[in-house]
Amino acid sequence: MSITAPKINDIDPLTALKSYLSRELEAVDKVIAQNLESPVFLIPTLGRHLIFAGGKRLRPLLTLACHRLFKETADTTTGLAAAVEFIHTATLLHDDVVDESKLRRTLPTANAVWGNQASVLVGDFLFAKSFQLMIETNNFDVLRILANASASISEGEVLQLSLCHNLEAPIEYLLRIIEAKTATLFAAACQVGTLMANQQTHAAPLGNYGQNLGMAFQIVDDILDYCADPAQLGKDVGDDFREGKITLPVLLAYPSCSAAEKEILKRNFIEMNQKPNDFSIVLEILQKHHSFTKAYKLAQSFGDKAYEALQPLPSHPLKDLLSDLIKHCLIRKF
Amino acid sequence: MSITAPKINDIDPLTALKSYLSRELEAVDKVIAQNLESPVFLIPTLGRHLIFAGGKRLRPLLTLACHRLFKETADTTTGLAAAVEFIHTATLLHDDVVDESKLRRTLPTANAVWGNQASVLVGDFLFAKSFQLMIETNNFDVLRILANASASISEGEVLQLSLCHNLEAPIEYLLRIIEAKTATLFAAACQVGTLMANQQTHAAPLGNYGQNLGMAFQIVDDILDYCADPAQLGKDVGDDFREGKITLPVLLAYPSCSAAEKEILKRNFIEMNQKPNDFSIVLEILQKHHSFTKAYKLAQSFGDKAYEALQPLPSHPLKDLLSDLIKHCLIRKF
Repeated sequence: MSITAPKINDIDPLTALKSYLSRELEAVDKVIAQNLESPVFLIPTLGRHLIFAGGKRLRPLLTLACHRLFKETADTTTGLAAAVEFIHTATLLHDDVVDESKLRRTLPTANAVWGNQASVLVGDFLFAKSFQLMIETNNFDVLRILANASASISEGEVLQLSLCHNLEAPIEYLLRIIEAKTATLFAAACQVGTLMANQQTHAAPLGNYGQNLGMAFQIVDDILDYCADPAQLGKDVGDDFREGKITLPVLLAYPSCSAAEKEILKRNFIEMNQKPNDFSIVLEILQKHHSFTKAYKLAQSFGDKAYEALQPLPSHPLKDLLSDLIKHCLIRKF
Repeated sequence: MSITAPKINDIDPLTALKSYLSRELEAVDKVIAQNLESPVFLIPTLGRHLIFAGGKRLRPLLTLACHRLFKETADTTTGLAAAVEFIHTATLLHDDVVDESKLRRTLPTANAVWGNQASVLVGDFLFAKSFQLMIETNNFDVLRILANASASISEGEVLQLSLCHNLEAPIEYLLRIIEAKTATLFAAACQVGTLMANQQTHAAPLGNYGQNLGMAFQIVDDILDYCADPAQLGKDVGDDFREGKITLPVLLAYPSCSAAEKEILKRNFIEMNQKPNDFSIVLEILQKHHSFTKAYKLAQSFGDKAYEALQPLPSHPLKDLLSDLIKHCLIRKF
């Protein structure tokens, strides 16, 4: 009996991408670990808790992939990919404080373990570190793209805060939030990897790919917060519901709800008066109005745009892997 | 009867410095206002609340002054000075969340008005904006210095958090915190202004000036938190005490305290079991052990070093104003 290594077709596209870029990803993890070092012990402790707790590394993978599409090695983007992951991790730390989340990546959140104060400050440290890392690229275009993405993320977060109890907000508002909070960093991750490979002409289409992949990814994320198996999601199902966070499935259902259903949604999302069975009741309302199907169609349309953006690229195994990644984001259960 | 304009000697050194750089400072305020603009209304609202509530603009003034020492105008440092103020403001926003402060610059803190969530996120926005502004200098040395200062500030904050209930911490630990949290940004503000004037050789001494000025400033700040007239301080007297924050006056007293006095300090700073009259009692203990005198002497020694660092500079009205600013920081009641 012989044991055979899994073929690339046997594994999911994210794992395949990670496998293709395993050497580079290992180098990124090394840079991350080095840059978490600090004589202030709470920084590596808290940082490692989150960063090495099974993060998907999706954003740094995009940076590495967009670089390797054009270059034999991605050594010059290792630090940059780590910077992208640091920006993401910093926003997660602050996000969990803002949302008062208790669970992420199957572990208690940093704020649940070390308190909000530590999460805020270590988040700031990671932001500063990301900036230090990206300066090392000596590339002002890269700096501008990532600084703009950082501003966009916080702008999106504040926008979400301002709108968090408005059931009648237009879908476009929510899409703008998703764009600012998620898609911009996906786009930036792709663009900077491409620019570091000196492929200015490919930066816009690959940014476009990242942008649309990010939109699809986040919409699926919002669906999964209602429908996923919590063990596979790695965080609590119903988090958004419990925080009264109005996401796409809710906004898509609301206009077609009956007066009684609207009252239930108002009580749960505006008055924040949630009763024990309310999650199931709200889930039923959202299903009845085909919210998840509608949201999923929207995610698919962004996925299609991401796919189109890839087409002008020359043939390359990574082009196929990036293409497969779109499907993976659409069918994922993570 | 004729009205005469006040002579420069009649006004305090900070006002004199502001007056000398009034044109540049006005331009900085304009850049600040422009960069607070956002379609997300909470960002300018919250940002303006803090930034235009009578901040001293000490750090951007240092940047402008160090530039104007060598150049006729400081136009090229306007954005940079605004970036320095944004870094400072972002840390204030997060600091007030971490410390749960209620009052700053005679106004309720942003977190007291809009909640911790908004303060965390708008702080992040200001950090990102500061990056955007400093990138416009096209100067990698400037970027490196300010990114390092940002990392240092959060490292200092986390260190303070780790040590916040240790009455036996060595004085050196606390000085390291003050250096990281305050002095590094003062030093950076001076260095980047100097570098933008293409005066590489003067960057180190002026950084040294800023570093020592920052140490003196923060130590006096910690004294004032116990001794100042609250109307002049612009924030609550006794804030540090109520938060159980162990500052220099407390650490300087503790080793020479009697067993009974140590118990009182432990109850107030470690167990956080504070009774109505405890602030006066602790104040008396600190005075009895000459904590404020000792702390003040330390501040003076940093002031002396700041003064020495200025001496090699060529004669200039701003050299005198920066020199006067040291004395002002030492005798200030703000």
